[in-house]
Amino acid sequence: MTLPEVRSGAERRANTLAKLQTRAMDVWVASASVDEGGSAQAYLVPLSLAWFDERVVIALERGSRTARNIAEQRAARLALGPTRDVVIIDAVVEQMINLEDAPDALAGRYAEQADWDPRTAGADYVYIVLRPERIQAWREANELAGRTLMRAGSWLV
Amino acid sequence: MTLPEVRSGAERRANTLAKLQTRAMDVWVASASVDEGGSAQAYLVPLSLAWFDERVVIALERGSRTARNIAEQRAARLALGPTRDVVIIDAVVEQMINLEDAPDALAGRYAEQADWDPRTAGADYVYIVLRPERIQAWREANELAGRTLMRAGSWLV
Repeated sequence: MTLPEVRSGAERRANTLAKLQTRAMDVWVASASVDEGGSAQAYLVPLSLAWFDERVVIALERGSRTARNIAEQRAARLALGPTRDVVIIDAVVEQMINLEDAPDALAGRYAEQADWDPRTAGADYVYIVLRPERIQAWREANELAGRTLMRAGSWLV
Repeated sequence: MTLPEVRSGAERRANTLAKLQTRAMDVWVASASVDEGGSAQAYLVPLSLAWFDERVVIALERGSRTARNIAEQRAARLALGPTRDVVIIDAVVEQMINLEDAPDALAGRYAEQADWDPRTAGADYVYIVLRPERIQAWREANELAGRTLMRAGSWLV
């Protein structure tokens, strides 16, 4: 198999930002909880995403397992596929805003990019604004070196 | 947007098995740990997968965070993309077999499907054999009903 050529850091950052701004883009959201016995349990769902002001915004049912996990952890690990052109984001919660309290600007920008509007979806949604702490991007094994594009909230490239 | 038509359970099962048997298929593996403060932390990586004898087999470095998490949790949550044609599998550990102890049949079948052979990769790998407990498959919102194809290890469709 011929691997695609290795991108520079600047190219990876540009590709990553383009992916994050794609309309109707979905993101895998991994979250975790601790059960009564003290064991960790992983959870994973695909959700629609928006990206603005360098933040990932997701919207989900307030009582969903992912929303409860993120409210507790104050963090999540996100991935955009496909698996051979990945972006992985470790992010922390900046804000959780119930639908009825969401500013029009936030709700409008989310709906525009996500191509889906929780305001018309008829359930009890919450917007979660996540601040990236670390962003990694790679395609194949030859891009594992140099995969970290952001660390401690600062772009390295 | 026109949604694709809703598949029957039998179609979803056939599509799911075809996806699981695709050569060089990757899977998102979500795992979790409990940190010293008692908080849950989610982790998520893409890995090569093989599917045989109704088991998901992955191979990864023994000291990797995912391997350590799964050894501790004895479970993982897996997803195959893309996000609008997903298969989600909640699985439990059936076996963890160090590379040097792996039967040739297991290692050979893994290498054949994954299109990658840990035996020649020069690190300390472990095969993890995961038994699906629950399998869900859906494309768009109109397929959320009927998305559970397996429950408690038994196919429902």
